[in-house]
Amino acid sequence: MSDNVVETKYFTFAHKPNEITLKSGVKFGPITLAYETYGTLNKDKSNAILIFHALTGDAHAAGFHKGDKNPGWWDPMIGPGRAFDTNKYFMICANVIGGCKGSTGPSSTNPATGKPYGMSFPVITIEDMVETQKYLIDHLGIKKLLAVAGGSMGGLQALEWSIRFPDTVHSAILIAANYKHTAQQIALHEVARQAIMSDPNWSKGDYYGKELPANGMAVSRMIGHITYMSERSMEEKFGRKLQGKEKLGYDFSHDFEVESYLQYRGSSFVSRFDANSYLYLSKALDYFDLSEEEGLVRALKGVKAKCLVVTFTSDWLYPSYQSKQMVKAMKTNEIDVSFIEIDTSYGHDSFLVEIDGQSILVKSFLENVAQKAK
Amino acid sequence: MSDNVVETKYFTFAHKPNEITLKSGVKFGPITLAYETYGTLNKDKSNAILIFHALTGDAHAAGFHKGDKNPGWWDPMIGPGRAFDTNKYFMICANVIGGCKGSTGPSSTNPATGKPYGMSFPVITIEDMVETQKYLIDHLGIKKLLAVAGGSMGGLQALEWSIRFPDTVHSAILIAANYKHTAQQIALHEVARQAIMSDPNWSKGDYYGKELPANGMAVSRMIGHITYMSERSMEEKFGRKLQGKEKLGYDFSHDFEVESYLQYRGSSFVSRFDANSYLYLSKALDYFDLSEEEGLVRALKGVKAKCLVVTFTSDWLYPSYQSKQMVKAMKTNEIDVSFIEIDTSYGHDSFLVEIDGQSILVKSFLENVAQKAK
Repeated sequence: MSDNVVETKYFTFAHKPNEITLKSGVKFGPITLAYETYGTLNKDKSNAILIFHALTGDAHAAGFHKGDKNPGWWDPMIGPGRAFDTNKYFMICANVIGGCKGSTGPSSTNPATGKPYGMSFPVITIEDMVETQKYLIDHLGIKKLLAVAGGSMGGLQALEWSIRFPDTVHSAILIAANYKHTAQQIALHEVARQAIMSDPNWSKGDYYGKELPANGMAVSRMIGHITYMSERSMEEKFGRKLQGKEKLGYDFSHDFEVESYLQYRGSSFVSRFDANSYLYLSKALDYFDLSEEEGLVRALKGVKAKCLVVTFTSDWLYPSYQSKQMVKAMKTNEIDVSFIEIDTSYGHDSFLVEIDGQSILVKSFLENVAQKAK
Repeated sequence: MSDNVVETKYFTFAHKPNEITLKSGVKFGPITLAYETYGTLNKDKSNAILIFHALTGDAHAAGFHKGDKNPGWWDPMIGPGRAFDTNKYFMICANVIGGCKGSTGPSSTNPATGKPYGMSFPVITIEDMVETQKYLIDHLGIKKLLAVAGGSMGGLQALEWSIRFPDTVHSAILIAANYKHTAQQIALHEVARQAIMSDPNWSKGDYYGKELPANGMAVSRMIGHITYMSERSMEEKFGRKLQGKEKLGYDFSHDFEVESYLQYRGSSFVSRFDANSYLYLSKALDYFDLSEEEGLVRALKGVKAKCLVVTFTSDWLYPSYQSKQMVKAMKTNEIDVSFIEIDTSYGHDSFLVEIDGQSILVKSFLENVAQKAK
């Protein structure tokens, strides 16, 4: 998509009294979803693929926004001849509810008060994200998606789509995903949340138009980045390389490149993401547990989609063993599933940066699905 | 030692003009080290074992302080008939320089100003810890230690002792240790430091007698605890168990036991440890790199001690591969070294909680060393 200028679109629904009921039981609306599309929807609307972004992602998956130097977050995977081939498929990517990239979230204006929702925004779940995306797909007049696909939080949404709307999904591509958040995953998120919420500028979420909780955000992002990389990739990229000095400083300025890198990542996060959205989306992830009510095998019982499950050897945040448990439960349900563990050192971030291996897998999987869907 | 009441002692040295020169080149003194001893030093002073604590530990390794309900941090390993058998050995444990448990550190009063050092305290290193401990051993009249031993940061000190004072150490027990801090280890410490330093109450380290940087301390401790456990031990201990509620709360109070546990650990840390000491000691760890000047093999060249290196399969903070590299470099130097990787799920904390396996190893190792030392 590299030569293409793309634009974000917006779809608003669930106007009162047609609010939607969230998983928590709370009725909520109106809801706007920001989304982008790439490629062309064919006449019988059978070539649509819905992709989902990860925690701090957005609808801008591919191409360039006018004037931007950097393309969307999954650009190397999307475009003519690429894994998600826009000569063949109509790609859709929506920013999630609870986010801060054009969709309704805690930083949006509450029409009832004229002020940002802040922490009065209702707690949302992966299920709620998927429920709202279905409105968008209906709005676009698409009866059945050729595929749903995503990495990390995006993979959870793809999985939930294939469970919640089994007749609407031909296939599902679940990359670096899992089926429930474990104690360690919850713990890592909770530390990041506490870092934000203990920043005095957070002010119980009421910081809009005031000083941002920049320190808390930076710390939470630093934790995040460590979990997105692997021990090996950090060692290969940084090791003990010094930053801007020839020997140890024997003070508390940064000595090592890895420290400066994390600080840069932390402080740049403040300007590009909303702290409250981080709280809400991390909570949605922690709440995710397909096995909670009746166990994993029963949760997957109704899935009709052909599935491709991809994991990465060095991903310690969403370790492969969880996907293997999921694949086993899928096989028990006689779901048509392929599982591949790609050997990389990039950790959880592999779904964003390991393009070659994923491209081959996704491309052949989609060709196969498209063939059978005809 | 469980039936024994023990007391902390203090030794002060390096009074001006006999200050010591730290690795940074800074001259510093006076220095007090808090220490405890267990067992009896024999007539020829040949049965002394010096043990070292981890980052937030102290001199109180075994027995009970008067009125205390909980014994010292390594009590199950130290006492009559235990791994470090106080019927045979004279055990010494000193709190490190830079600490806050009786030894000179940032919270100590600077005699020149009558105020706490705070961040005017010099940056210290593992080498400086060992250098100061040597003064204590000399003070106790001990010419040669039967063993030096420790886990985590304690293991680094034991290693440094066997390099720096090869003729003073019969043997070294290095548990859950490494020979240099990697990028990930530095990164995890740096996030913890940033959490503390970005707390407004930290006030550039000048918080003594005022409000403590409690929020920053709590966040840093939460990060620490996640790294001390393993993914598996967190899952086994907490999983997705709810805390004080029967179903998800759909709010930002704690839903999960693991969240409450971390909060408890975080907030109790504030009252038991000094924030500045955490900064200094974590920095000392990050600075540790035996291989920095001439490579690991050459760094270990002069070691005469018989070594026992113990790691734990689930320790992802100080992974086994680092100890294996160290053992290889020891073998290249024809150092007499035994290496054992114990299979546990407790993560880095194993050196504190996995007692049975360690006891067998330490006991037989020490008996063997004592036999040959005669």
